[in-house]
Amino acid sequence: MYDGIKGFRDFYPGEMAARRETIDTLEDTARRYGFREIGTPALERAEMWTDKSGDDIVDELYSFEDQGGRHVTLTPELTPTVARMVVAKQQELSKPIKWFSTRPFWRYEQVQQGRQREFYQTNVDIFGSSEPEADAEILAWAANALTNLGLTGDHFEFRVSHRDILGGVLESYDADVDTEAAIRAVDKSDKISQAEYHDLLVEAGLDYDQAEEFADLIAGGDLEEVKSFADTERVTAAVDNLQNVLEAAEDFGARDYCSISLETARGLDYYTGVVFECFDSTGEVSRSIFGGGRYDDLIESFGGQPTPAVGVAVGTATLPLLMQRAGVWPEEEVTTDYYVLQIGDTRSEAARITRELRERGHVVETDVAGRSFGAQLNYADSINAETVVIVGEQDLENDEVTIKDMESGDQTQVPVDEFPGDLERPTYDDVA
Amino acid sequence: MYDGIKGFRDFYPGEMAARRETIDTLEDTARRYGFREIGTPALERAEMWTDKSGDDIVDELYSFEDQGGRHVTLTPELTPTVARMVVAKQQELSKPIKWFSTRPFWRYEQVQQGRQREFYQTNVDIFGSSEPEADAEILAWAANALTNLGLTGDHFEFRVSHRDILGGVLESYDADVDTEAAIRAVDKSDKISQAEYHDLLVEAGLDYDQAEEFADLIAGGDLEEVKSFADTERVTAAVDNLQNVLEAAEDFGARDYCSISLETARGLDYYTGVVFECFDSTGEVSRSIFGGGRYDDLIESFGGQPTPAVGVAVGTATLPLLMQRAGVWPEEEVTTDYYVLQIGDTRSEAARITRELRERGHVVETDVAGRSFGAQLNYADSINAETVVIVGEQDLENDEVTIKDMESGDQTQVPVDEFPGDLERPTYDDVA
Repeated sequence: MYDGIKGFRDFYPGEMAARRETIDTLEDTARRYGFREIGTPALERAEMWTDKSGDDIVDELYSFEDQGGRHVTLTPELTPTVARMVVAKQQELSKPIKWFSTRPFWRYEQVQQGRQREFYQTNVDIFGSSEPEADAEILAWAANALTNLGLTGDHFEFRVSHRDILGGVLESYDADVDTEAAIRAVDKSDKISQAEYHDLLVEAGLDYDQAEEFADLIAGGDLEEVKSFADTERVTAAVDNLQNVLEAAEDFGARDYCSISLETARGLDYYTGVVFECFDSTGEVSRSIFGGGRYDDLIESFGGQPTPAVGVAVGTATLPLLMQRAGVWPEEEVTTDYYVLQIGDTRSEAARITRELRERGHVVETDVAGRSFGAQLNYADSINAETVVIVGEQDLENDEVTIKDMESGDQTQVPVDEFPGDLERPTYDDVA
Repeated sequence: MYDGIKGFRDFYPGEMAARRETIDTLEDTARRYGFREIGTPALERAEMWTDKSGDDIVDELYSFEDQGGRHVTLTPELTPTVARMVVAKQQELSKPIKWFSTRPFWRYEQVQQGRQREFYQTNVDIFGSSEPEADAEILAWAANALTNLGLTGDHFEFRVSHRDILGGVLESYDADVDTEAAIRAVDKSDKISQAEYHDLLVEAGLDYDQAEEFADLIAGGDLEEVKSFADTERVTAAVDNLQNVLEAAEDFGARDYCSISLETARGLDYYTGVVFECFDSTGEVSRSIFGGGRYDDLIESFGGQPTPAVGVAVGTATLPLLMQRAGVWPEEEVTTDYYVLQIGDTRSEAARITRELRERGHVVETDVAGRSFGAQLNYADSINAETVVIVGEQDLENDEVTIKDMESGDQTQVPVDEFPGDLERPTYDDVA
């Protein structure tokens, strides 16, 4: 007997049904917003990640040499792949390009609750617009997807910031600051002590007083104060852009879910503008549920024409934690509209009823294992069948079948040639 | 700029829309039959394949050592994984177990039309029934899925056989025959010359006269002749089982799509009973579209209780060739219900209309790129928008918006507070 691999989950039907319902809602919402589904490969050239250094992700790659001697990797994230796809057809794609997809990714990480080595994400991106409306549409999709899942503003909040605010404020210091290191420090600030946080800022090039001052300013989150503190065009433009995005989010119905949080930096270095992370409003799920933001330089770094971009990736590992906490995670069970039970040699008639009900779109099972009445009834119960249609030899001699409601146990007989009849979805209540 | 990897496809929105529609139909049909979706990992221990020898698949594995020193492989097929999952929860799963899933698999093969190194399959399996009804339900699902895709008996046929017929006839020879080698020879017979075929049978242990006789008997496909030729219990039982499966398939509405073809052996050694392959009826697509069959020994070989099993895997690489040939492959294009066009500072009103239309489930885009009237109209055309709602500053001064039908070019003005109004999906024709 073989075991599965650590960090790789098997999903059995009950749990899978809840996951499918969740993913369907994310995707259905994306389709309504005019995002178009794409399909992307599981493997890419490892160089797409290893050519850039300094990112934790490089150490977590499932990379190897394929039989053709290519250095390949299981993709740890989608963005480089979509960047490659945009570059490959840059001329012929009409812009803005609005894409989504749901699929697994792989990272060799420490396995913990809500974090597996194989994890699913729904990625939603817009390429070709630098306007605040594009950022706001990503926020609006994310908010609308969550409300369609049954969540409300009591359950989640988007903490929104702008990458240039941090960068710009850091730049305004008369010091040689490693901006990316400092931003990574901010990104980690809620997971480490204040002393450790300040130490990291000092390592990045601030002195201790500056580190404290900077940390307080950012934690304060007052946009006007930040603007006047830095007093640079860059910070002013960043603050204005953030305010414009939030204004557009107001029109798009997403503003109520957003709070300004300048400590939100997102770990990945490729973000260039507005960034945001979704958190559990109550703090019960302490880590970020998902996040996104603007990354205007990535396409160019992949050899394409400069192309502004903004996107978000919703993972289906952490999201269930939030949904369970909020009480909106779907029941982890299968559902069945009809079980057509056979007693004796009644396959032909049972098959006719089964086929007619399936043609109407219902979930219908019938016996394919030659089992007894009791075994079939137990099975029907195990798959949560709502209605059992009993097709028995004796009933059929009277041209009848029995319709049984599985919840109440009530049953009644109906003429076989009137079932399923004209009703789209006949139940015991309809025929009794 | 990076390239994708040979044999790994990118799917852009138009083609993806056609693929999604196709996969949705396969899956929706599976759900109606009471198959339950499962989720399975991309990586498994390589030993699940390498422990068994003799299979071409072992040479085609994308296998490697992970960072924890595990010998892992990208899965080349689903069956060993589902066998592992059945074994892991054998006691608690109610039988018959009916599972389906759609996902990619990976094999390092020669790339050609309809064959990539990354390929998608919808796998549909029943565990826990040795009855002919289970085989017939698999045939019925496959036939029903294809007819739901718009195909008919003029387009496809299932060539059906039974593994024990070949094995049993070979066994009836007074010779030391390597049965699996001989069955592989039969499986290849339509791709090689008759002489090569006979040679392979001789290599497997028959003499030349026997090889010719055997080849003719199998090509003839007369079940009664086969039964009397072998005159063994095993062949008689196999022929009876095949006939019982076809009789059940008659009740389940699939018999018309089936023809008996004893040369259909399926390449994989784990089949034990009825096997079938789907072919283009016209022969234009010469290779097998997909196939399936019964594999009663596999679960036990994975350390589980003896558990009969039957299944099929429909690949979405070859299937489009058949659908295109038959003229039922969906249009490879995106569709859009509404584009809400903004002229001047009308974002707020445009956003309201957009949101209301999206709430009704429609696919709706609006400007997120600050583009001109003409650019927006071109974009609306490029996404095949059916209706354009023009929200202009001047119109709004008169409390009106313009509804434009993109096919005819006709347009008319309506009061802004009456759009979208009470109609579920208002078009130009409704408001003109």
